[in-house]
Amino acid sequence: MESLYVIKIGGNIVDNPALLTTCLQAFAQVKGQAILVHGGGKMATSMAESMGLEQTMIEGRRVTDEASLKIVTMVYAGYINKNIVAQLQAAGLDAIGLSGVDGNLIQAHQRINAAIDFGFVGDIDQINTNLLIELLSKNRRLVIAPITHDGRGQLLNTNADTIAQSLATALAASYQVHLIYGFEKEGVLKDVNEPSSVILRLDRPSYAALKAQKIIVDGMIPKIDNAYQALDNGVASVVIGKAEKLNELINGTAGTTIQL
Amino acid sequence: MESLYVIKIGGNIVDNPALLTTCLQAFAQVKGQAILVHGGGKMATSMAESMGLEQTMIEGRRVTDEASLKIVTMVYAGYINKNIVAQLQAAGLDAIGLSGVDGNLIQAHQRINAAIDFGFVGDIDQINTNLLIELLSKNRRLVIAPITHDGRGQLLNTNADTIAQSLATALAASYQVHLIYGFEKEGVLKDVNEPSSVILRLDRPSYAALKAQKIIVDGMIPKIDNAYQALDNGVASVVIGKAEKLNELINGTAGTTIQL
Repeated sequence: MESLYVIKIGGNIVDNPALLTTCLQAFAQVKGQAILVHGGGKMATSMAESMGLEQTMIEGRRVTDEASLKIVTMVYAGYINKNIVAQLQAAGLDAIGLSGVDGNLIQAHQRINAAIDFGFVGDIDQINTNLLIELLSKNRRLVIAPITHDGRGQLLNTNADTIAQSLATALAASYQVHLIYGFEKEGVLKDVNEPSSVILRLDRPSYAALKAQKIIVDGMIPKIDNAYQALDNGVASVVIGKAEKLNELINGTAGTTIQL
Repeated sequence: MESLYVIKIGGNIVDNPALLTTCLQAFAQVKGQAILVHGGGKMATSMAESMGLEQTMIEGRRVTDEASLKIVTMVYAGYINKNIVAQLQAAGLDAIGLSGVDGNLIQAHQRINAAIDFGFVGDIDQINTNLLIELLSKNRRLVIAPITHDGRGQLLNTNADTIAQSLATALAASYQVHLIYGFEKEGVLKDVNEPSSVILRLDRPSYAALKAQKIIVDGMIPKIDNAYQALDNGVASVVIGKAEKLNELINGTAGTTIQL
């Protein structure tokens, strides 16, 4: 089967033009098919502040009210998505930017939580796998913004890590899919303050033990849970590491490889 | 040849949710292939104001500095484009939203004007006709935001009327193309204060005469010039009229038909 790289890049790299360019240059060199999923959290927050809008965070998660949804739609699907596509086009790639609403790529439903109202946050119901395969078959590079819709006209803000995992899983029957989570750290660390403490290979028993010891905590847990969900559903490999080291994450010389 | 409707809707209708919904419901009923090109001027202006950014207008045209480019990219390619696509998806259409950078759809160059620096404004160099035909052949409805790029990584703000004309012209060899300019007026008026004074059919000699008499003035002139450029290049028909009367503009019972 042909290789497909599904690469998620996180907020901090999107906010740093030099790091973003480094990462996109590496993305342009990827052999095989490739999908880039981007977030953009910090820019959305600063945009909301410049407009005098207060952002409500509950348990570290942004509550997406109507004004926040407007901002993330503008920043993610507009500014960040189109600037990334423009850079990839300049690098000679046939890149195309999509959100989850385009071609009904990612349909979701608004999250129902009896305890906390997260607002316009979407949990994924289905991926339009045929559209992805159609576009990839023309050797296009797809750039995906983490905005989905409910099929009834409502846009929804959806976690970009989960989108990357869902796209990877949906395509696992058609490609040998490699899922890469690029973020600000070297990988999964034994000591969060020591970049050199990166765990090269993390298997399930070790993950359970490190969680129990509170060494793996916070936002790393859903990221690794997404990684295992991908591996459990046919994705060939998952690597977590520093986004600007994309080449090394792909060839296996940096980051943490997640193993069953 | 198969029919293709290229429909441009202007700023005021985009700002009015009820009118926009009426227009999109009519768009959903169009028989044949269809492309929707949207602007969004007023929302971009109010967004800039809410962020404390001053907008410079020269001869009625917005000067697109870096901050303005960021805003129009967010508002046009993000908020407006994705909300329109979500509504069309809800109406059962396989709609997909694109800007000119996606798939290198519309390549442009920054406008050079010795007298006035318009900033990041783009004049169109080429249309990726193959991409349009590929997507239309799958019965997709395309929703186009008026943001283009120069192929070297720079996004550019480009007039939506001109984009609609350029798309219509590029596709005239492959489809029987009908170009419709939807805006806030009933059509080309003999008396700008009298909606019932709409000119049903405008030919070139009448246009020249009405321009000379200063009856057709201002923003109507580039719109009609775009219409003639389309007709001169193989577009089958051009109608200008009220955006929310899209059905009537299509079946010829409203608006002004532009004739050679």
